[in-house]
Amino acid sequence: MKTTHRPYLIGAALVGALALVVTVAQAADPLPSWNDGKTKQSIVDFVTRVTKPGSPDFVPVAERIATFDNDGTLWAEQPLYFQFFFVLDRVKTLAPQHPEWKTKEPFAALLRGDLKNALAGGDKGLLEMAMATHAGMTTVEFEQLIKDWIATAKHPQTGRLFTAMVYQPMLEVLSYLRANGFKTFIVSGGGIEFMRPWTEQVYGIPPEQVVGSSIKTKFELRDGQPVLVRLPELNFIDDNVGKPVGIQQHIGRRPIAAFGNSDGDLQMLQWTTAGSGPRFALLVHHTDAEREWAYDRTSSIGKLDRAWDEAMTKNWTVVDMKQDWKIIFPLPNK
Amino acid sequence: MKTTHRPYLIGAALVGALALVVTVAQAADPLPSWNDGKTKQSIVDFVTRVTKPGSPDFVPVAERIATFDNDGTLWAEQPLYFQFFFVLDRVKTLAPQHPEWKTKEPFAALLRGDLKNALAGGDKGLLEMAMATHAGMTTVEFEQLIKDWIATAKHPQTGRLFTAMVYQPMLEVLSYLRANGFKTFIVSGGGIEFMRPWTEQVYGIPPEQVVGSSIKTKFELRDGQPVLVRLPELNFIDDNVGKPVGIQQHIGRRPIAAFGNSDGDLQMLQWTTAGSGPRFALLVHHTDAEREWAYDRTSSIGKLDRAWDEAMTKNWTVVDMKQDWKIIFPLPNK
Repeated sequence: MKTTHRPYLIGAALVGALALVVTVAQAADPLPSWNDGKTKQSIVDFVTRVTKPGSPDFVPVAERIATFDNDGTLWAEQPLYFQFFFVLDRVKTLAPQHPEWKTKEPFAALLRGDLKNALAGGDKGLLEMAMATHAGMTTVEFEQLIKDWIATAKHPQTGRLFTAMVYQPMLEVLSYLRANGFKTFIVSGGGIEFMRPWTEQVYGIPPEQVVGSSIKTKFELRDGQPVLVRLPELNFIDDNVGKPVGIQQHIGRRPIAAFGNSDGDLQMLQWTTAGSGPRFALLVHHTDAEREWAYDRTSSIGKLDRAWDEAMTKNWTVVDMKQDWKIIFPLPNK
Repeated sequence: MKTTHRPYLIGAALVGALALVVTVAQAADPLPSWNDGKTKQSIVDFVTRVTKPGSPDFVPVAERIATFDNDGTLWAEQPLYFQFFFVLDRVKTLAPQHPEWKTKEPFAALLRGDLKNALAGGDKGLLEMAMATHAGMTTVEFEQLIKDWIATAKHPQTGRLFTAMVYQPMLEVLSYLRANGFKTFIVSGGGIEFMRPWTEQVYGIPPEQVVGSSIKTKFELRDGQPVLVRLPELNFIDDNVGKPVGIQQHIGRRPIAAFGNSDGDLQMLQWTTAGSGPRFALLVHHTDAEREWAYDRTSSIGKLDRAWDEAMTKNWTVVDMKQDWKIIFPLPNK
C-alpha cells in the first residue's frame, strides 16, 4: 500500500505548489506591454471567466483552444507578406538555372527589380512564383532553406530580422493564455512549412500547432531512403472560408478564442464565436504609422473592412495599436 | 525582488517532486498486461534510452512524437473495419430516403443482408457507400451521429461495444509513453471525423492529435450561422504512402516511434525509422485465433506481408499477440 499511496501524496504537494505558482503569476501583470484600458481588460476578463473553477463560464483545459492569424496579427506584413520576400530571394537565387525567366512574367519584372510589375499579376502571378520556388525539393531540404533564410534575411525598411518584427504585446497574450491552460495554434494564410521551422522558437508554438496553406507532397523511396517530395500543385488555401476548414481539419474542435487583423480572418472569428459558452474574438487594427504602419479598409495587404464592421456589430475586441500598445516590437536586447 | 524569486524556488521544489513521481512510477510495472520477454523489453529499453538525461540517445520532450495506427493496432478490425459497421447501419437508416438503393449496387446487396456481394465491389463500392453516408450534413451533426452510434453499437460476434475492443496492452503503451513526455498521435486510414468524437475518452488522445482520411468540407453561413458542410468529395487518403504525407501535414515533424500492424503502415514505419538518432518501430502480429483473430499474409483486412518481411530485415519489434499479451481487451469491469 505504501508505494501506491506515495504518488498521491506527492501529487497533492504538486497541486499545492502549482496553485502557489499560479497565484504568484497572477499577482504580476501578465500583459505589461499593454496600456490599461478596455482592450486589455477584455482579454484579462475573458481568461479569468473561463479559468475560474465553479464559474458558470468555466471551460475545461482540453477545450481551451486559441487560434492566431500570423501576418499582421503576430508579426508585421508590410509592405509585403514576409513570405514573399523569401520568394523574391529564391527567384534571384534560382534564376541562373531558369534562363527562361528572363523573358517570362512575372519573373522577368522581378529580376529587373521592378517589384510593381512583378506584383501586377495578382494572386495568379504570386502563386506561380511560390510554386516555382517552394516545390521540387524534399520537405527536409525545404525546412533547411527556410531555417537558413529566416536566420539572416532582413526587412528592407527596418533593417531588422523578420523574426524581430513580431509584436511584443501579442507574445505576451500567447504566454498568458498558455499559462492559463490554453493550447495556442497559428491559423494563417501563409505557407505551413514556411512557418513551422521557426514558430516554436519565436512564438512557443510547436509545428503540430501550425495550420497554413500548403502544396501537395509525395512519398518516394530514393535509393531505399524515404523522402517527401514537394510538388508544384496546390493542396489547401488556409484563408477566408478556408480558415474554419483548416481548423476543423487540423484541430478537430472549435476554438474558444480567435485573434486576427483582416478580412481574411472574418470566417475564423465567425466560426469561433458561433460556438456555445464563452467566446472571445479580437482584431488588431493597424493605426500606428509612426511605430509600424497604418492601414485598414483600402489596403491591398491586410485589408480590414468587412471584419471591422462585424466586430463593431458583435462587440468583438478591436486593438488600436497606437493607443493600446506601449511597444510594438520586442526590445533589441530581448 | 521577492516576488520574482518566489516562482524559481517553487519551480525547484516542483522539479524535485516531479523527479520523485517519476522514480516511483518507474518502480511499478508500466506494462502489466505484457508478458516479460524481448518484445516488452524492447519498448522499455527504447523509452529508457531516449528519456535518460545526459544519455547520447536523449531526445528533448518536444521531439518525443509517437504515432499509432488505429485499426488492428489500437482496436480490433475483424471481420470488417469497425467504421464499416457504422456505414452498414447508416445505409439501413437512410434507405427509406433512397428508394433507388433497392436496385443500385452495392447498396441493394447490403440491404438484402448479402454482405459478401455488398463488399464484392472492393474499395470503389466501399468508398461510394462511405460518401453516401458520411456527407451531406454539417460537421456538428456528423459528430453527434458518431457519438450516438459508438455509445451503443455492438460487435456482431463478441457482443461488446466497439470501444471495449481496444487492446489493453496498447492502452498501457500509450499511457507509458505519455508519462515519459511523449505526445501520442493516431495516424489511421480510418475517417478522421469518425475517430475524433471518442479517441480522447478511449485512448486519451485529443482530436487535434488524430490524423486520418477525410472528405472535403465547405464553410457556409446558414441564416447567419456559420456551418461546415461535409461534401461527397474525397480530400485525403491516410494510408500506405499517404501516412507519411498525413504525418507531415498534421504534425510537421518526424515521429521517433511508430506502431502499426499491416502493410498499410509500412511507409509510416519507414519514414519514422529513417530519421537520425534513436528510433522505434513496432508491428502487432495477430496470432491469437482463440482470444482475438489470427491473420497475416493473405488477409483481405489488415494484410501483413511486406511490412513483416521488412520488420525482420530491419529488426523492428513484432508483437506476437498470443505470446506477448496476458489479456487482449480491457477487463469488463474496467
